[in-house]
Amino acid sequence: MTDQNDSKNKVTRRGFLKATGGATATMAGMAAGGLILGSKRLEAAEIPNKWDEAVDVVVVGSGFAGLAAAIEAKAAGASVVILEKMPTPGGNSIINGGLIAAAGTPLQAKEKVDDSPELMYQDAVKAGLGLNHPELTMMMARQSAEAVEWTVKLGVKYKDRNTHLGGHSVPRSYYTTNSSGAGIVRPQLAKVKELGVPLVTRCFLDRILRDDDGRVKGVRVYEDYRFPDTESGKMKNIRANRAVIMATGGFAQDLSFRMLQDPKVDEKVESTNQPGATAEGLIEALRLHANPIQLSWIQLGPWACPDEKGMGIGYIFAISAAFPYGIMVARETGQRFVNELADRKVRADAIMKTGSFAVGIADQEGVFRTAKLDTMLERGVVKKFDSLEALAEAFKIQKEWLKKTVAEYNAHLKGGEDKAFGKPFQKDCKPIASPPFYGMNLWPKAHHTMGGIQLNTEAQVIDLYQKSIPGLYAAGEISGGVHGAVRLGSNAITDCIVFGRIAGKNAAMDRPWA
Amino acid sequence: MTDQNDSKNKVTRRGFLKATGGATATMAGMAAGGLILGSKRLEAAEIPNKWDEAVDVVVVGSGFAGLAAAIEAKAAGASVVILEKMPTPGGNSIINGGLIAAAGTPLQAKEKVDDSPELMYQDAVKAGLGLNHPELTMMMARQSAEAVEWTVKLGVKYKDRNTHLGGHSVPRSYYTTNSSGAGIVRPQLAKVKELGVPLVTRCFLDRILRDDDGRVKGVRVYEDYRFPDTESGKMKNIRANRAVIMATGGFAQDLSFRMLQDPKVDEKVESTNQPGATAEGLIEALRLHANPIQLSWIQLGPWACPDEKGMGIGYIFAISAAFPYGIMVARETGQRFVNELADRKVRADAIMKTGSFAVGIADQEGVFRTAKLDTMLERGVVKKFDSLEALAEAFKIQKEWLKKTVAEYNAHLKGGEDKAFGKPFQKDCKPIASPPFYGMNLWPKAHHTMGGIQLNTEAQVIDLYQKSIPGLYAAGEISGGVHGAVRLGSNAITDCIVFGRIAGKNAAMDRPWA
Repeated sequence: MTDQNDSKNKVTRRGFLKATGGATATMAGMAAGGLILGSKRLEAAEIPNKWDEAVDVVVVGSGFAGLAAAIEAKAAGASVVILEKMPTPGGNSIINGGLIAAAGTPLQAKEKVDDSPELMYQDAVKAGLGLNHPELTMMMARQSAEAVEWTVKLGVKYKDRNTHLGGHSVPRSYYTTNSSGAGIVRPQLAKVKELGVPLVTRCFLDRILRDDDGRVKGVRVYEDYRFPDTESGKMKNIRANRAVIMATGGFAQDLSFRMLQDPKVDEKVESTNQPGATAEGLIEALRLHANPIQLSWIQLGPWACPDEKGMGIGYIFAISAAFPYGIMVARETGQRFVNELADRKVRADAIMKTGSFAVGIADQEGVFRTAKLDTMLERGVVKKFDSLEALAEAFKIQKEWLKKTVAEYNAHLKGGEDKAFGKPFQKDCKPIASPPFYGMNLWPKAHHTMGGIQLNTEAQVIDLYQKSIPGLYAAGEISGGVHGAVRLGSNAITDCIVFGRIAGKNAAMDRPWA
Repeated sequence: MTDQNDSKNKVTRRGFLKATGGATATMAGMAAGGLILGSKRLEAAEIPNKWDEAVDVVVVGSGFAGLAAAIEAKAAGASVVILEKMPTPGGNSIINGGLIAAAGTPLQAKEKVDDSPELMYQDAVKAGLGLNHPELTMMMARQSAEAVEWTVKLGVKYKDRNTHLGGHSVPRSYYTTNSSGAGIVRPQLAKVKELGVPLVTRCFLDRILRDDDGRVKGVRVYEDYRFPDTESGKMKNIRANRAVIMATGGFAQDLSFRMLQDPKVDEKVESTNQPGATAEGLIEALRLHANPIQLSWIQLGPWACPDEKGMGIGYIFAISAAFPYGIMVARETGQRFVNELADRKVRADAIMKTGSFAVGIADQEGVFRTAKLDTMLERGVVKKFDSLEALAEAFKIQKEWLKKTVAEYNAHLKGGEDKAFGKPFQKDCKPIASPPFYGMNLWPKAHHTMGGIQLNTEAQVIDLYQKSIPGLYAAGEISGGVHGAVRLGSNAITDCIVFGRIAGKNAAMDRPWA
């Protein structure tokens, strides 16, 4: 038996674990991706004698949550710094789809939509299979409308109608005018700049520094870090007079870590996330004994196109055309196999069970709300055909089977009820009959990691013994419990803004240490 | 905001957290049960100057896994001590049902059952929804037959036919002659005694002691501990010359810890486990940075009767009569609602969705294989009636609805196909028509916690950085990954014996420290 922690073997600082095939390589290929860090020495006193810099609140991560936290902390009078490991700010948020759910909003009032935080809560718990931490989910729902209002005050522009996404009982999602999370991140970044909050990119969090008295007092970082080279950068210790806020996001791009929790999400499953969505921030919080919550629930996006990298743009065709106004069929059978508006988990699992790609299909009437269609066509992500036969041939679907499926679907639509899969038909949905026809391959990608560290409603990080860790806050995808087993579309931004703001306000008011 | 870890507030040693409703009480009633320990000081050097005792291998826990580990470690030449926190040995294993799955056994050869480790592996992965760590599940399957043989050599007596349990493709489960895990634990305990291995009861593990060099070197325990009084007992430091083996079991009885992972498993859900099945051993391993795996997967037993405590005996009626030869109906509707032989998770979820108790029903023909029926009747767990009407009245089911349900079921049976829920009918299954009729209330109980700390196939504990923790091994329910999302019945003992033996052998050969 080999002892890989042998004290004689000096481990490199934050060095990649080599997949040796030895005793610790428990999963084939598990070290093939992701940012597995070298084993760290159990340090007795981590607090440096001299700090390189000092600030009231250190925010780690520059997505929706981190930026919201920084803005609120600064507004509450604290000095703040934002640390971002990647070369550009915005994290995964800047490539997010730009939909934010809220209950009791002006848009809902205008459209006479009857909604409430309670209903939003119930929808989230139903999708979450009851794994949601009730008080966190309720906090998100109760503060959702205020969160939207807060972004509007920052200058965020939204489309003038609510979007009705799967799993939500009513239309309650605001949609940025540019159909992207960048529509929120950019005004947040402008506000950060206006407030004079420094944002340091290429700055890698190596350690959260906790003192013998149990309090978090700062961070050890590496500046001029070049992702993903964990040996790069120059060490610096930053004192946090009041608190550290972890807003480092999820781990959908961390192949090794996510495969430990769900081995199905292997190298064949790509991710919609930016490459920096790795687990080392989460792991560092676990090192400080943050309580791990529901880490094995990894959400796959059913609207992802395997013919493009990352999030891409094909999902827009899926969610705005094929799913609500068209159909999804299995390539091998030419048949529908699931309610195209079922929750993400149901749809993603169903697609993977087909064993081959699924194909999303809509006709000319079905794409009337689809933004960026020309770009999708140019990139070859979505393909256009004069006839269903031509579409079938291009996607290698048996023509007669596909025509039969479309005829059945049109008959259900005419009858007003989807007798096959119970899809709720949109009021303005028309039969699939008007050329040209559009088709796109579908295969799930890892999209959101529901699990994470435990928070309370004050955004304090809770440890294994159910105590808050003094001086440590968190918000956004690094945390678990808000969404339970399955996150509803457009609840992510709400989560990030609500808890980011709470973390920022509370961190700014936390007890300074002498 | 309160800071519950304020260094000025002295926390009591291992004191219960009071549910204060303050910032850290994140879930209503979450501190109502379970063994939440007080926050521990982050200690720099935990190794005592002087050890009270020394032994080569310390085994924590005295169930199937711990005893198997102790026997193998001693047989390999190590001095061993077994620590058990409860007043009596055997843990939850001693009240286990006594079924152990194995592929390629003498009984299968006798019955001409075509089986293989690969098929056993596939069954486990199917039930486990693909969350299984493949190499662990395969190790269990490959060593399963040898595990049974090992128990036979210890003197364990099995019934002379294989049992075919739900989810297994073929009959592959050995059943102890006394239908209890005690049939295995008692011979294990006898062997431990014969080998001269001391087993200390009422001995609580407070700390695993890890040195600055990263190696586990012993444990701090409290002897004369009175469960669950975390203030009781006398401290002692035991040096482990070679290794510590954690075999402390699952946390199905730990209301607070399990509710953090799955809030649905609340105080209304009892547990089949002995009261000592709490999480503090697992939490202590997490404190040492063992990697948490799939903690949110908690198995509920769908065959549990809410009218008796713990595992009870009513489950025998459910699994040998009502499910295979009878029906299960919702009390409120009088209707069946699920395939009574579906997997545990499907059935348990379905019962909880009824919102009221379910009732298991069988007639005189259906109980022909039901052991202990008289005892169940005496205890009032199962009730007997001359007519279906009388049964309906006693269980508050609408009589006509129940009669209609039974008539429909009998018609399906006659037709050879369960058109309602697809239950595979037993060959010797007869219509429900022969009085007396038997009924029992059903409501799920927490039964097994699939998640736990990460192991490799050498039973070494793997940390957050994917390195083994030197000197630390584990086996059994404290570990995660073997069963994935859902454990098949009778795979638990196999898991415990296989990995317990591996842990014992490897711990005995581990590098001694000077």
